[in-house]
Amino acid sequence: MAFDIKNPYLLFLGDAPDQLAAKTANGVKVWRPDWCIGQFRLPGCKADLGLPDVSIEEAAAKGAKTVILGVANRGGKIADSWTVELVKALELGMDIASGLHTRVTQVPALKEAAAKHGRTLFDVRHPTQDFAVASGVKRTGKRLLTVGTDVSVGKMFTTLAIEKEMVARGMNADFRATGQTGIFIAGAGVSIDAVIADFISGSVEWLAPENTADHWDLIEGQGSLLNVSYAGVTMGLIHGAQADALVMCHEVGRPHMRGLPDYPMPEILPTMDLILLHARHVNPDAKFVGVALNTSNVSAEAAAAFKEKTAKETGLPVVNPLIDGVAPIVDVIQKG
Amino acid sequence: MAFDIKNPYLLFLGDAPDQLAAKTANGVKVWRPDWCIGQFRLPGCKADLGLPDVSIEEAAAKGAKTVILGVANRGGKIADSWTVELVKALELGMDIASGLHTRVTQVPALKEAAAKHGRTLFDVRHPTQDFAVASGVKRTGKRLLTVGTDVSVGKMFTTLAIEKEMVARGMNADFRATGQTGIFIAGAGVSIDAVIADFISGSVEWLAPENTADHWDLIEGQGSLLNVSYAGVTMGLIHGAQADALVMCHEVGRPHMRGLPDYPMPEILPTMDLILLHARHVNPDAKFVGVALNTSNVSAEAAAAFKEKTAKETGLPVVNPLIDGVAPIVDVIQKG
Repeated sequence: MAFDIKNPYLLFLGDAPDQLAAKTANGVKVWRPDWCIGQFRLPGCKADLGLPDVSIEEAAAKGAKTVILGVANRGGKIADSWTVELVKALELGMDIASGLHTRVTQVPALKEAAAKHGRTLFDVRHPTQDFAVASGVKRTGKRLLTVGTDVSVGKMFTTLAIEKEMVARGMNADFRATGQTGIFIAGAGVSIDAVIADFISGSVEWLAPENTADHWDLIEGQGSLLNVSYAGVTMGLIHGAQADALVMCHEVGRPHMRGLPDYPMPEILPTMDLILLHARHVNPDAKFVGVALNTSNVSAEAAAAFKEKTAKETGLPVVNPLIDGVAPIVDVIQKG
Repeated sequence: MAFDIKNPYLLFLGDAPDQLAAKTANGVKVWRPDWCIGQFRLPGCKADLGLPDVSIEEAAAKGAKTVILGVANRGGKIADSWTVELVKALELGMDIASGLHTRVTQVPALKEAAAKHGRTLFDVRHPTQDFAVASGVKRTGKRLLTVGTDVSVGKMFTTLAIEKEMVARGMNADFRATGQTGIFIAGAGVSIDAVIADFISGSVEWLAPENTADHWDLIEGQGSLLNVSYAGVTMGLIHGAQADALVMCHEVGRPHMRGLPDYPMPEILPTMDLILLHARHVNPDAKFVGVALNTSNVSAEAAAAFKEKTAKETGLPVVNPLIDGVAPIVDVIQKG
């Protein structure tokens, strides 16, 4: 895999200015609690994941294999106070996996220490692997892709919830990560928005390769065909995934598309139709199996009404994965 | 501009093994004959553009500003025999613009000579500029985008033919290049298939910025929404271009999509419908103004029949730009 990040993890929070800055680390803790042996915080850190605070030495003693930098750093630079601790981690046998924009592989002290101690530095936002151009050749095995009306509508959460439900039912399924938080959670994956344009769909063919007939790759979606900033990424995901099953994700009550005040939020049904046109180009059997709603910004009444309306219009199970779980969606998948 | 390549040019053919290896240089010669002061060939060169053969010294004396490496090199490496001549060109005050996969900026002798003599090395396949994420905000000025059923169906040729016709009519128009040959022809542009996935549409917004109301940006298309290898690039082009006018390009008689034996060539009409869905998301006034056919692989009879059928189905002018020119398409654009 492009990234092969060993667990257990030490979640490095540094001097995170608030809880939101540790959003990525929090996602790892929520979805992979067994992999997280603790959190590391410097003086002044305002984030807390509710994990034991451990020093680098204690983490090493407890068997931590990788320090996860799942935190937004200040000013785009890695502070010297961080470097000192991270060098210690490398000396004590841990790798470092970073979700920062700043590359840890370009911090001289870390590069030298990693080389000296035979450790690996992963910049998960920056794929280093070369991918092939997509072939479009049909692969065995089953694939699910989460898609959406916009960015940040719950695609990763929904995909992980489906993985959890499938695994609980004894199904053969793997979450396939396409973003930084997902990559930490999977220990592998492709930061697809950072891939060279020619290789977007090719990187997805690589991420979700041929598999046994009963196996499900659950591919984390990104962007939206209707989000004009990122639709190229989404297009490549749809073509590369060759999805058998699609799950539509949507945030109820969002006033306009994220970052695009000129673009109202798309309606669910026409967006599904548009996506199907492209999904069926690579897999004529592609179909939607459910709708996942983020209803955290509307009243319970509004949420219930929207859910009912959407279920009626689509004829599919409509859930808020956070509240309802995704069992009705997995039921549809199992029925085939 | 990302690349600002000064002319006149010296077209460097090196030891090109055949005429096809000099395809890019030939495109520059065809579309910008006035910029090309000559060709440079090493012993064993099997390509000939029909330009005067000049030495590096003669090119410098004639005022060449840039050496264009518009040729496929053998084995992906720049031979020492090339380097010697290219260093000479840098010493004599020329820049070098390369369309090779191998980066001239990574050949130590060239890097050193360029630094020493204050010259610039352009690797046009490798954008070095950072682009912003697309905003989708409507820009003034008019834009035309060529699109197609597949890759390599004549989009660049059609776009350049339209520029030529518009300029001949005194219209205010600029060709905007998105591939290596186009970049040499324009002296500027973005090699869009090499842009990071998140910035595809943003790079097009940058390439074809706000302009005066009467101005036309004629944007060179790439790929196809139905070519599963490259559709992400095409999607970003469609969203970034906010095209007022679209021209559909197609090769008659191609047995299947380029490089994709499992995918038959798409029909023109449904492909146009699909493209319009996306083009109108960013510009509700987007419409097709013509169809450009490459008919070089079918008989004259078959070509004529296909043209007639397509004109009837689309209600648009249908031309083979190479034979018929593009005047009927520009007529439609002028009528508005």
